[in-house]
Amino acid sequence: MHVLIIGAAGMIGRKLAARLSEAGELNGRPIEMLTLIDVVAPEKPARLADNIVTAAGDIGDPATAPSIVAERPDVIFHLAAIVSGEAERDFEKGNRVNLDGSRALLEAIRNTPGNYRPRLVFTSSIAVFGAPFPHAIADDFHLTPLTSYGTQKAIVELLLADYSRRGFVDGIGIRLPTISVRPGRPNQAASGFFSSIIREPLAGEETVLPVDESVMHWHASPRSAVGFLIHAAGLPADRLGPRVNLTMPGVCCTVAEQIAALRRMAGDRVAARIRRAPDPLVAQIVAGWPRRFDPQRALALGFKAESSFDEIIRVHIDDELGGNIAG
Amino acid sequence: MHVLIIGAAGMIGRKLAARLSEAGELNGRPIEMLTLIDVVAPEKPARLADNIVTAAGDIGDPATAPSIVAERPDVIFHLAAIVSGEAERDFEKGNRVNLDGSRALLEAIRNTPGNYRPRLVFTSSIAVFGAPFPHAIADDFHLTPLTSYGTQKAIVELLLADYSRRGFVDGIGIRLPTISVRPGRPNQAASGFFSSIIREPLAGEETVLPVDESVMHWHASPRSAVGFLIHAAGLPADRLGPRVNLTMPGVCCTVAEQIAALRRMAGDRVAARIRRAPDPLVAQIVAGWPRRFDPQRALALGFKAESSFDEIIRVHIDDELGGNIAG
Repeated sequence: MHVLIIGAAGMIGRKLAARLSEAGELNGRPIEMLTLIDVVAPEKPARLADNIVTAAGDIGDPATAPSIVAERPDVIFHLAAIVSGEAERDFEKGNRVNLDGSRALLEAIRNTPGNYRPRLVFTSSIAVFGAPFPHAIADDFHLTPLTSYGTQKAIVELLLADYSRRGFVDGIGIRLPTISVRPGRPNQAASGFFSSIIREPLAGEETVLPVDESVMHWHASPRSAVGFLIHAAGLPADRLGPRVNLTMPGVCCTVAEQIAALRRMAGDRVAARIRRAPDPLVAQIVAGWPRRFDPQRALALGFKAESSFDEIIRVHIDDELGGNIAG
Repeated sequence: MHVLIIGAAGMIGRKLAARLSEAGELNGRPIEMLTLIDVVAPEKPARLADNIVTAAGDIGDPATAPSIVAERPDVIFHLAAIVSGEAERDFEKGNRVNLDGSRALLEAIRNTPGNYRPRLVFTSSIAVFGAPFPHAIADDFHLTPLTSYGTQKAIVELLLADYSRRGFVDGIGIRLPTISVRPGRPNQAASGFFSSIIREPLAGEETVLPVDESVMHWHASPRSAVGFLIHAAGLPADRLGPRVNLTMPGVCCTVAEQIAALRRMAGDRVAARIRRAPDPLVAQIVAGWPRRFDPQRALALGFKAESSFDEIIRVHIDDELGGNIAG
């Protein structure tokens, strides 16, 4: 089969490409071709390299979608997005890429002749939800995003469901939790501290916690995120039904519980590398974010996340640090 | 003030124009100018005629929105839409008018210079909801439309909320119930029987009921719909908050209760003009529609509908039949 990843140079896209190239198969069928697209051409994973095509392509350019869909990939992972902060700063760019780009992809699929109906896995986000929230957000809670990014994701969810209902595409949307622990350097995202309070201490570095330890959030590891994507690719449409957009499972915990897990995994000395420096702006942004879900449908459909934050830290140590901690 | 009605030739649009021209004011301020737009130029109501401008304009044409917004109306009622059945048959036309047309209007407002931030009242629909449903649909129930029309309305709701949150417009979306009793001739809408089983017997004509009498639905009169629009125009943004889209109140009743009300109002002889002729296709379509809401927010914000179907019939007799029934 032919698999296409749009947004393959991002953190999740790279891990997904690596996982697929190592497995050499998806949904039990061998991968004959793996196409990796991003605004800059992604790197090729080492394995299966002869079957991998990489190319630069901006999904926000109306010419991109028709050209990449012309090769009729069987499974398309659509991960490309302008991230939350940038979509908030640059309204037009966010709409052009996250909304118009995704719609162009759906239209390109619809307009491909000859009963073309690929499985399209769309990565949505828990940013489609906006406070105030109930104790736990059920699968039938309404989407009232408080960012343009969340609005764009929610709109694409609606389009995905309608295009799927009409038989133009075989779509599934998965709302990713906050991905912890993100590898790499600290970034400017308001959510960055959820990862950096674990990542930097484990790497022997100091880090700053800008919010109160009572802040609660919804996490899954990068490994789980890749697992969600692969599971979504293989889920039969008749099991999914018309409500094709699903909140993914995750771990609900407070910052205090994150730190306690770090202490259990790596000791007091590591946990002591977190410095408290309250930032009211970050605290205010985080207050509008969802904390806890009750993702019954995704669990019933076989999506699996970690069961504790200890496990999320273990995944980070294994996948990113070769099992080693800077003690 | 300057009031603009887009979709002013439709049933609700005409009634709204007539009500505004009779009142001569909106939100306590005199109407100096009333602009009525539709794909064919709407008729002028009799009163206030010197202050009324009518014009033909297709909101699905990208040039339309900028030209009608250029005159900086203070309040815009956006009622224009391709109806449900047509949007389902013609996917591209529905998207062009209902989605792109509404977005073009929002963009035209955003791009108008000089702190232009009109109140925009958008008519959404209970078609944003799709079965299965709980006993009563609460204000925080998710939108999972089962038609392209409902999808387009739900997307515009999201855009309206985001444009309002960002300060580009002062928007409010109201989800209208099924409007009963629609005046005029029977139409091809699957929902047509909800009105025709009342309207035709009252006019001395036979009519057909294609579904079981146990079918339950959510109704409000045309008079209430106009009342919702006018109330929405005057509702302060700070009372509305960021969740700018509201399900309107209505009357929940079964077809049997509709017929019982008709019998109470007009007698057995009138009610006997309804002939049962089950149509499985209509029954199947109707089964996906919402039946009952718990619209607490709209009620708390002062929106008012009828309290019984008897009252809805009374409104029809008063407003459309001059108080008379063909006995």
